[in-house]
Amino acid sequence: MHPFRSHTCADLNKSNVGETVRLSGWVHRVRDHGGVLFIDLRDHYGMTQVLADPDSPVFSQVEKVRSEWCIRIDGAVKARDESLINPRLPTGEIEVYIRDIEVLGAAQELPLMVFGDQEYPEETRLRYRYLDLRREAMQQKMMLRSDVVASIRRRMWDQGFREFQTPIITASSPEGARDFLVPSRLHPGKFYALPQAPQQFKQLLMVSGFDKYFQIAPCFRDEDPRADRSPTDFYQLDMEMSFVTQADVFDTVQPVLEGVFEEFGGGHKVDKHWPQIRFADAMKWYGTDKPDLRNPIKMQDVSDHFRGSGFAIFAKLLEQDRTEIRAIPAPGGGSRKFCDRMNSYAQKEGLPGMGYIFWRDGENGMEAAGPLAKNIGPERTEAIRSQLGLGKGDAAFFLGGKPSAFEAVAGRARNVIGEELNLTEQNRFAFCWVVDFPLYEKDDETGAIDFSHNPFSMPQGGIEALDGDPLEVLGYQYDCSCNGYEILSGAIRNHRPEIMFKAFSLAGYSEDDVRARFGGMVSAFQYGAPPHGGCAAGIDRIVMLLADESNIREVILFPMNQRAEDLMMGAPSEPTNEQLRDLSLRVIDQE
Amino acid sequence: MHPFRSHTCADLNKSNVGETVRLSGWVHRVRDHGGVLFIDLRDHYGMTQVLADPDSPVFSQVEKVRSEWCIRIDGAVKARDESLINPRLPTGEIEVYIRDIEVLGAAQELPLMVFGDQEYPEETRLRYRYLDLRREAMQQKMMLRSDVVASIRRRMWDQGFREFQTPIITASSPEGARDFLVPSRLHPGKFYALPQAPQQFKQLLMVSGFDKYFQIAPCFRDEDPRADRSPTDFYQLDMEMSFVTQADVFDTVQPVLEGVFEEFGGGHKVDKHWPQIRFADAMKWYGTDKPDLRNPIKMQDVSDHFRGSGFAIFAKLLEQDRTEIRAIPAPGGGSRKFCDRMNSYAQKEGLPGMGYIFWRDGENGMEAAGPLAKNIGPERTEAIRSQLGLGKGDAAFFLGGKPSAFEAVAGRARNVIGEELNLTEQNRFAFCWVVDFPLYEKDDETGAIDFSHNPFSMPQGGIEALDGDPLEVLGYQYDCSCNGYEILSGAIRNHRPEIMFKAFSLAGYSEDDVRARFGGMVSAFQYGAPPHGGCAAGIDRIVMLLADESNIREVILFPMNQRAEDLMMGAPSEPTNEQLRDLSLRVIDQE
Repeated sequence: MHPFRSHTCADLNKSNVGETVRLSGWVHRVRDHGGVLFIDLRDHYGMTQVLADPDSPVFSQVEKVRSEWCIRIDGAVKARDESLINPRLPTGEIEVYIRDIEVLGAAQELPLMVFGDQEYPEETRLRYRYLDLRREAMQQKMMLRSDVVASIRRRMWDQGFREFQTPIITASSPEGARDFLVPSRLHPGKFYALPQAPQQFKQLLMVSGFDKYFQIAPCFRDEDPRADRSPTDFYQLDMEMSFVTQADVFDTVQPVLEGVFEEFGGGHKVDKHWPQIRFADAMKWYGTDKPDLRNPIKMQDVSDHFRGSGFAIFAKLLEQDRTEIRAIPAPGGGSRKFCDRMNSYAQKEGLPGMGYIFWRDGENGMEAAGPLAKNIGPERTEAIRSQLGLGKGDAAFFLGGKPSAFEAVAGRARNVIGEELNLTEQNRFAFCWVVDFPLYEKDDETGAIDFSHNPFSMPQGGIEALDGDPLEVLGYQYDCSCNGYEILSGAIRNHRPEIMFKAFSLAGYSEDDVRARFGGMVSAFQYGAPPHGGCAAGIDRIVMLLADESNIREVILFPMNQRAEDLMMGAPSEPTNEQLRDLSLRVIDQE
Repeated sequence: MHPFRSHTCADLNKSNVGETVRLSGWVHRVRDHGGVLFIDLRDHYGMTQVLADPDSPVFSQVEKVRSEWCIRIDGAVKARDESLINPRLPTGEIEVYIRDIEVLGAAQELPLMVFGDQEYPEETRLRYRYLDLRREAMQQKMMLRSDVVASIRRRMWDQGFREFQTPIITASSPEGARDFLVPSRLHPGKFYALPQAPQQFKQLLMVSGFDKYFQIAPCFRDEDPRADRSPTDFYQLDMEMSFVTQADVFDTVQPVLEGVFEEFGGGHKVDKHWPQIRFADAMKWYGTDKPDLRNPIKMQDVSDHFRGSGFAIFAKLLEQDRTEIRAIPAPGGGSRKFCDRMNSYAQKEGLPGMGYIFWRDGENGMEAAGPLAKNIGPERTEAIRSQLGLGKGDAAFFLGGKPSAFEAVAGRARNVIGEELNLTEQNRFAFCWVVDFPLYEKDDETGAIDFSHNPFSMPQGGIEALDGDPLEVLGYQYDCSCNGYEILSGAIRNHRPEIMFKAFSLAGYSEDDVRARFGGMVSAFQYGAPPHGGCAAGIDRIVMLLADESNIREVILFPMNQRAEDLMMGAPSEPTNEQLRDLSLRVIDQE
């Protein structure tokens, strides 16, 4: 017989009754029922009830084992009494009478129980991750992640893509976030960097004539900690194609993601129609560039109804340039209590409040209530109601000013309203493409113009488009959102050196700057570059959505904590003097 | 019509005659045949002949294009004359008459031609890798690599393994080679390290209850340059299983590798029988722990025939402890010319030379020739011939002394003899397992005892085995070789803390040392560790074998050069002062 197991802990059933078997696994829990010891023996595959009564030749040894000891047992499979059959357990028809036992690995007192649902501080869970990972829910999430990645790979291959590994030790390239640097021992004083993404390499692959590339790629950013991202590395489905338009990229990637959500979405509805929403519309309708389309609320511009109206605050606001009154319709929100609660919400978010109107049963049928309605009078109120398509029992909230000042709060209020009024559909994955992003943005503090996404996107309208106001230039760059989370970002690339240099010059970079920063790619573009484009989808984010988790560390095997430390492995740590000397480095005191 | 292509450059054949098509690709070469311009248009998928005669509305534009320009053409598909059909080209039945052309990406003068087989210095090829990669042979090697990796993944999944990603930014762990360090910005003066292999993480995964793990894992070692290895990173098929013996690991991994070699071996014979050879035997028979079994030569100990013989050098040698005379039989090598050449070979390799005997037609039938034969006389000569199973036309070479002093040369001589005498079978992949490696080795210079492989292997014979001479202890550790290259290495792990501490103590490490270096794993083993084992196979090496290449850079997309530089991307490079300040580091001058 095999020294460790004849079967896994998920294998045995009625057909094995009478057999002598060997099982290995962990003691999930031990129960003593009137002198008979019952052990739930657990391995990766399942659980089997094994037991020792005082007649067992190894009873005294079985008595010693404790939770999470790793043991091997030999025993006889017996059928359970009809009344004791556990239909929820694949092995629930049988139990195994222990005749021999071997302790493969004993366990000290446990800092964290595997059995049960007790919650532990995250630091404890991360320090003893190997125990935390034994828990059923963690096993399932890690298997989910593994399955999702494999499914993505299969789907990409099926579409004619090949996976290539691009370098992980490479050149520093300032693309937005901070690089992790790696000192070179052979070249004292010089440093490599870990790639923030394989952006340049995938574009070089297109220039190299590979038509369809993908990679489940590790990406590295030295970012300040945040709950929903890993402080060091994360994984992307990175892809790129040559001779394509934006529509080709969408047609390629949508079936892959849709398929993955269908396969692992636990039966939730997966939208087949992924609307394309212009960035400007997304901000107007949803107050965000990652709208949650499970929520049917669409905001509207209602400025005209307030211009010169009796509500002086809005009327005055509208006299200023680039101001607007935006309405959030709230079907079913027609009660003063709800409206007041939302008004307080806006105040908590730092706005003066949200004006509102709601429609209720009055003496003469439907009547509009709320302070705003009184101020602007019945005609304007009715015009607003009619524009928003609301009726009795509904409400509308109003925000005014420069859109950039209220849009973010409006977007969050829309989420809260959708949830509180049960308008946001549950058990559904709703996707959308957000397109026509501006190529540039203005830094509010410095007034400087910089790229809004990455600097490699093709401007819409070609080189001529770069002659006017940079802030008006749109790029062939896009995001995809699911349920309000950005899960993918991409672009058709700017593969023409002359357009690239001009685009960079608008953001204040000289040709020399560009060559210094992106030299490899820029020279490559001078040797017959094909038009190309692609995207990168966040693996961790997708798995989080599928696992219904909001903490990224729940879907990573061995994550860093929020201070970018691995307490289990002891990283980061002090280097030895020899290591520092090898690297020609000295640590300097921080003042 | 799609803006870039209606078909790829491999799609068109007779059935498309008469169609108007759109193709995009690179100008492979242009030929002018009596005023008609023929262009071989190339994309990732194939090649199509397109042409413009002076009647073409865009003739003057076609005249301007040069090799490696990226263009889009529209044209009419016409059948070639029967006599001009190219049966080697999938599109060889047709050609396309250009009616419209667009230059998508022009090319400057090329530093490296894609067309043809011209050789270029490696530095040129790496600096312009995007051009080098366009060449047919490079495209094929990269596709081979991608296909091999995908096939390995599929085969591992089919065997019930799951792929998990382990951290790339982690703790320094001195396992033999030098770590690449990554300074931490958030923890000034502290460093992360890139993993030399996911060794500890995969063992932690087993302790976490995952039964079968694999990963196509990037591994990082800051090693001094060598032709056959990457100076920075390389890829391994890393795998680990719980509750297994060495035989289980072999039975799991052999079908995977065998399958891959069958699938991509280009019809070469792939051995089904992978003999298990003890390390000691491998050294004795083949002079190496990675024998090439395509070569049938097996060395033998022939000391007894020389003890007290007339060949004083060997006779004297044998009076010393631990000395031996080893014979390399050379069937078919029975000529003085060949024997002298091999003798010179040994001298070039730093030995005094190799004695030899060869057997030829003499006056009275077969006779033994060579100086050795004379010295030891006919009886001993005949006994040697008989032991080695040689005959007329054969030879044998002899090396004497301490095996450690001559074995390496003997092993290489065996290779040369096998090749020169055409004994080494071509077009075949021959594998073997080398088992029973010693757990420890002695440093020749310092006399210190250290681990021979990695320190995590289980000693054979358990903790008692560690009571005797460390150099006699064998481990459950193994390699697999193919055609003389080590392609895999692994072990059954030492999962028992008490055996682990004792094993480390023999190599001079205290318990505290062990906890400081491998703390994460050591504590994990105290919470119910399962027996486990696995291996890691070198992806680059396997692809090299399948591609019949001896330079690892031929199977890597964007390799570093031998000075660990990426000239294309400019890595490593000087950091900015701001970057150094962020990391609290100063570069110190090397004296």
